[in-house]
Amino acid sequence: MHSLPRNITVLGSTGSIGTQTLNIVQRFAPEYQLRWLTCNTKVEDLAEQASALHPYGVAIRDEGACKRFKNLLPDFNGRVLCGEAGLCEAASDTENDFVMSAMVGFSGVAPTMAAVESGHTIGLANKETMVSAGKVFTEAARKFDATLIAVDSEHSAILQCLIGENPNAIARFIITASGGPFRSHTSEQLQHVRASDALAHPNWKMGDKITVDSSTLMNKGFEVIEAHWLFGIDTSRIDVVIHPQSIIHSLVEFVDGSIKAQLSLPSMLLPIQYALTYPHRLPLAMPPLDLAAVGALTFEKPDTVRFPCLRLAYEALETGGSAGCVLNAANEVAVQAFLSNQIAFIEIPRIVEEALNNIEHLSHPSMSDILAIDRETRNRLLWNSSVQHSHS
Amino acid sequence: MHSLPRNITVLGSTGSIGTQTLNIVQRFAPEYQLRWLTCNTKVEDLAEQASALHPYGVAIRDEGACKRFKNLLPDFNGRVLCGEAGLCEAASDTENDFVMSAMVGFSGVAPTMAAVESGHTIGLANKETMVSAGKVFTEAARKFDATLIAVDSEHSAILQCLIGENPNAIARFIITASGGPFRSHTSEQLQHVRASDALAHPNWKMGDKITVDSSTLMNKGFEVIEAHWLFGIDTSRIDVVIHPQSIIHSLVEFVDGSIKAQLSLPSMLLPIQYALTYPHRLPLAMPPLDLAAVGALTFEKPDTVRFPCLRLAYEALETGGSAGCVLNAANEVAVQAFLSNQIAFIEIPRIVEEALNNIEHLSHPSMSDILAIDRETRNRLLWNSSVQHSHS
Repeated sequence: MHSLPRNITVLGSTGSIGTQTLNIVQRFAPEYQLRWLTCNTKVEDLAEQASALHPYGVAIRDEGACKRFKNLLPDFNGRVLCGEAGLCEAASDTENDFVMSAMVGFSGVAPTMAAVESGHTIGLANKETMVSAGKVFTEAARKFDATLIAVDSEHSAILQCLIGENPNAIARFIITASGGPFRSHTSEQLQHVRASDALAHPNWKMGDKITVDSSTLMNKGFEVIEAHWLFGIDTSRIDVVIHPQSIIHSLVEFVDGSIKAQLSLPSMLLPIQYALTYPHRLPLAMPPLDLAAVGALTFEKPDTVRFPCLRLAYEALETGGSAGCVLNAANEVAVQAFLSNQIAFIEIPRIVEEALNNIEHLSHPSMSDILAIDRETRNRLLWNSSVQHSHS
Repeated sequence: MHSLPRNITVLGSTGSIGTQTLNIVQRFAPEYQLRWLTCNTKVEDLAEQASALHPYGVAIRDEGACKRFKNLLPDFNGRVLCGEAGLCEAASDTENDFVMSAMVGFSGVAPTMAAVESGHTIGLANKETMVSAGKVFTEAARKFDATLIAVDSEHSAILQCLIGENPNAIARFIITASGGPFRSHTSEQLQHVRASDALAHPNWKMGDKITVDSSTLMNKGFEVIEAHWLFGIDTSRIDVVIHPQSIIHSLVEFVDGSIKAQLSLPSMLLPIQYALTYPHRLPLAMPPLDLAAVGALTFEKPDTVRFPCLRLAYEALETGGSAGCVLNAANEVAVQAFLSNQIAFIEIPRIVEEALNNIEHLSHPSMSDILAIDRETRNRLLWNSSVQHSHS
């Protein structure tokens, strides 16, 4: 083995990325050891993980769930921390060699920042942190000498294409999008889709929030923003192309017109493992990609009329400042309302656009400004007609 | 500019790759200067190049043509060398910083070896050298500390995909083939194709010899052999896939199942420039690749029943020793006979297979053995019924 990370902390270990991370870590045990596992409320799953994998400790955000954990696993030898402060303590543990940030949504911001301020190497699966506070995060990473490694399949593809290349030779990123389950829906049809339709993603099995974001193309917009912050590339040099097969995970064009692409069958195991082993590669028993069997890889322009979320994300990135935070918070509230059948699918971009237009803009928000703006956006939407009553 | 090569010698400057190399060198003048230009017989073209570009000298293989050059350009200030010895002198000039080996066929072997034995950095566009004498060439390159840089679009794609990667992490090469103009022909239809049909390649404008090789898939077989020698990869780990659009130029699969690909619109300018600037990149005004406009990239398994040359090349590589030399020599004779309408298209693989079966095999041929086997193969075919009388 090379000088690979050994003490792995998984923030959000009971989610989709978290459980797949544990899968990889187990395969490379005892070289990889688990330091902290954390969750929000799913303590039953966490207790199973803790009793099977013996981490150094666990941290549970929800205080009530934290008490339940102690009843579920009274014999647990490791440390047990509660609340957001507990997650931040786990994230900033100086014994961490690698922190996988795999929490869902804005809840990942504070623990991920704790890991950044400790100068850790961080696998970033929580893209909302970069959407909400990309500038604050990248500046902190520079200041505290933290390393942010992309875990999204698209950003992992870009990272792999950039290995060994001079950053000055980059001309353009081309981020691929499956197009989601409603790619071929008319505007009329989009008015009638339900949460259960949105959760049936054609290629990827993911959590509910990201699956809805994928169906609105907001997820792709978030990835454009994340790519900008992670790799320092201008918005104007980041394109999106619809690629329904999800085989090419993204492409990088260089100044000589050469384009490099990264391909694989759709699976998050590969980008998760690559983040852990970067810049090395270790064997992973993926089913081999047989291009002749796949037959065709197809491409289309994205349609921002039917899917305005992609346009809104580009606009928020252009606006800068607090716009990304409002974009993300409004989207989280709207997606939650859609998942609980309170609003229609096509209301999601309307709610987000209204929030972007109406919530006061800050050009240079601090971390505490970001937290306040996130809270304000959620409060205004939750008490305001657009979410409560738009399901007419 | 980085520490890029400055004194460029172009062996075969009047051919397709040669003239495109001059195009690139001119764009980067005065950082790049022309040392030697060489040709076989096309002294009219060479005289034009010499009078426009002022190389240090020229070398002309054909002795009669060499005399014509002096009449065509009596005022030429540079040196003029004649015969194969002249080409070898130009190739081994200690002032060369980069030698582009762009001669056609086996005629490139001796001058390219002269460049290798001088420890130069060599752009290898003449794949017949590696097919005929891959082992001798790679051993000589190691001994004399010469660097061989692939110029074929496929090998350039592999080289670009390997930048920054650990060679031990390579799992497989996937070399793409356009399939040529007869990709969809039935065996029956293949019996009636003529040289003029073969010269109408769908994607690439190249010299006649390589265009016919592309239509038989022998060119792809040669590339498999070249990839084996250039990158040290087992035959069993080199696959070929038909990709009619010629947008993906080849792919590399790694041990973690990740695949990297290099794409561009079909143009040899890119791989030529990459060889000159490797491992750097300089701007090249290529038309941008619009994947949505391309629409689909398709893939098929190659058919070695209709196109036996690909199978013969794999077999020759497995056999090793002098088999590659026989494969190449028999193919050159057969293609020449086909181009002059002496034999049918489907005779090409038959002639090559017969030569492989009948000409004595040497397991560890030296360079002089290779030269002798090449001569013997040509003589036996030229005086033997298979080429002279197979056009029935």
